[in-house]
Amino acid sequence: MENTFLKHISRSTPHHRLVPLGIGDDAAILGHTDNLDTVVTTDMLCDGVHFLSDEVTPELIGRKALAVNLSDIAAMTATPVAAFVSLALPRDLEHDYVYRLMNGIRELADEFDVAIAGGDTNSWDGKLAINVCLSGIVARRNAKLRSTAEPGDWILVTGELGGSILGRHLTFRPRVDEALKLAVAADINACMDISDGLLLDLSRMMEASNTGAVLDYDQIPISPAARQRAIETGLPPIEHALSDGEDFELLFTLPAMEARTLLANPPFTDVRLSHIGKIIGEASGLFRRVPDGNLLNVQPKGFEHEWHP
Amino acid sequence: MENTFLKHISRSTPHHRLVPLGIGDDAAILGHTDNLDTVVTTDMLCDGVHFLSDEVTPELIGRKALAVNLSDIAAMTATPVAAFVSLALPRDLEHDYVYRLMNGIRELADEFDVAIAGGDTNSWDGKLAINVCLSGIVARRNAKLRSTAEPGDWILVTGELGGSILGRHLTFRPRVDEALKLAVAADINACMDISDGLLLDLSRMMEASNTGAVLDYDQIPISPAARQRAIETGLPPIEHALSDGEDFELLFTLPAMEARTLLANPPFTDVRLSHIGKIIGEASGLFRRVPDGNLLNVQPKGFEHEWHP
Repeated sequence: MENTFLKHISRSTPHHRLVPLGIGDDAAILGHTDNLDTVVTTDMLCDGVHFLSDEVTPELIGRKALAVNLSDIAAMTATPVAAFVSLALPRDLEHDYVYRLMNGIRELADEFDVAIAGGDTNSWDGKLAINVCLSGIVARRNAKLRSTAEPGDWILVTGELGGSILGRHLTFRPRVDEALKLAVAADINACMDISDGLLLDLSRMMEASNTGAVLDYDQIPISPAARQRAIETGLPPIEHALSDGEDFELLFTLPAMEARTLLANPPFTDVRLSHIGKIIGEASGLFRRVPDGNLLNVQPKGFEHEWHP
Repeated sequence: MENTFLKHISRSTPHHRLVPLGIGDDAAILGHTDNLDTVVTTDMLCDGVHFLSDEVTPELIGRKALAVNLSDIAAMTATPVAAFVSLALPRDLEHDYVYRLMNGIRELADEFDVAIAGGDTNSWDGKLAINVCLSGIVARRNAKLRSTAEPGDWILVTGELGGSILGRHLTFRPRVDEALKLAVAADINACMDISDGLLLDLSRMMEASNTGAVLDYDQIPISPAARQRAIETGLPPIEHALSDGEDFELLFTLPAMEARTLLANPPFTDVRLSHIGKIIGEASGLFRRVPDGNLLNVQPKGFEHEWHP
């Protein structure tokens, strides 16, 4: 099908990674050099769930729609290439609103050298929904998975966690560059992004890897927003760092020796790297080490996006 | 982000074209052999626009969501590989309904050997919307475009046109196999699928190719449904064949000599091939040849999906 709306946007985006870019055709063509794998992710943002259209600018809504997908590509330590944007637009939405929304997508796309290579625009008697599908490239068999954590690995996270609902969930910078630098600097075993809360996402990594994890709560980087949020909720700040959704930081594991070298010589200094625990093979699930040295089982309480009727 | 719902579906789909299939990770990995291009398309179906959820089974809604994307991949004469399914589900939708919808997608995916390789599931206080993003592969630089029609080319279409609203828009078989056979059998210059009506889509091809087209209305294959529809609307059946949306047939052009050979030895016999006109270089736009031999300019009246506030 056709998407005339996107054509104007697309022609202004860089696309040197695509040969050729089949804008206006039924599908976009991604040509790439040999020895690469293509990675593809998709996320849909829905009004009232991932954003509130009456509280947030259209630019930030568009930005977030791409940013959450960039975070998924970063989690594979891949380089983003081309975005495909589908819009379900309320019939009475103003033209200017849609341009502002697309500008929010385009500005972030430009920043990460991503082409907006296709899409689909619909108007309906429904609320605003935006789907972005994003492809990326990575050296063959070099995409990082969540299922390959190894016992003995150290667990690291980028940035600071918690309280993103206070604004960072709209303005966060996807860790694309950091992920690529980490993948070059160290031999990472497993990686994912934290989208539904550290504990919940780590438990998914442990399930996929058939391993367990021991966390050192003292080392978990608590964001200022998590502390602010804690004042509002009355919960300890660490709870927000552990369980708030939409951090969009990297959660990764690597052999202890690799981790020590990495922490001694981090490949970037503007984003924090924290060693928050280690992988164990003898038990599944999550544990925290308490002052007496014992391990306490931890139940994840993150944000579940899934549909549970 | 996570999509536990899709995991169960995905594991049952064939995926021998993917190495490995990163189900459950942040992105799916598409590994493929050298000398291939990846093509990607996306289409969103919205309740009340592309289907009526209170009149159509969830299986057919799911089927259509994938089928329209398969048609786009067919239009590039590519082989579909992996589908990424995003759902916006009304909060009160029953679990069984969603399984039936996914089954509709899966059955068609199985038929075309497509892996459901990722997706995103959301529930919201809104109506049902389904986005499918579909990737495919094609020999490098062999994807057919709409912008490469050449003066002198004959214009051909598969199947019969018009009246798909009476049911075929839900049950049509995407022309994936036919497109691949055509690409092998003949040297096709330009190809697209007819999604918004023959005249409108052909006018887009002409605009992209900077050419004009002369149609022979007598040769346009009118479907039985178009004749049925004509009884209901009082319009001539040819009008429905020319302008009804959602035919999802192939519209392609090729040199006259190639076309003659192809029509003499069609690579399939169960789907009709019709020679409906030719490409001209001396004028842009669409024309029909009338009995006195003159050309009349034709204005396309197809279905415009785009958003016009």
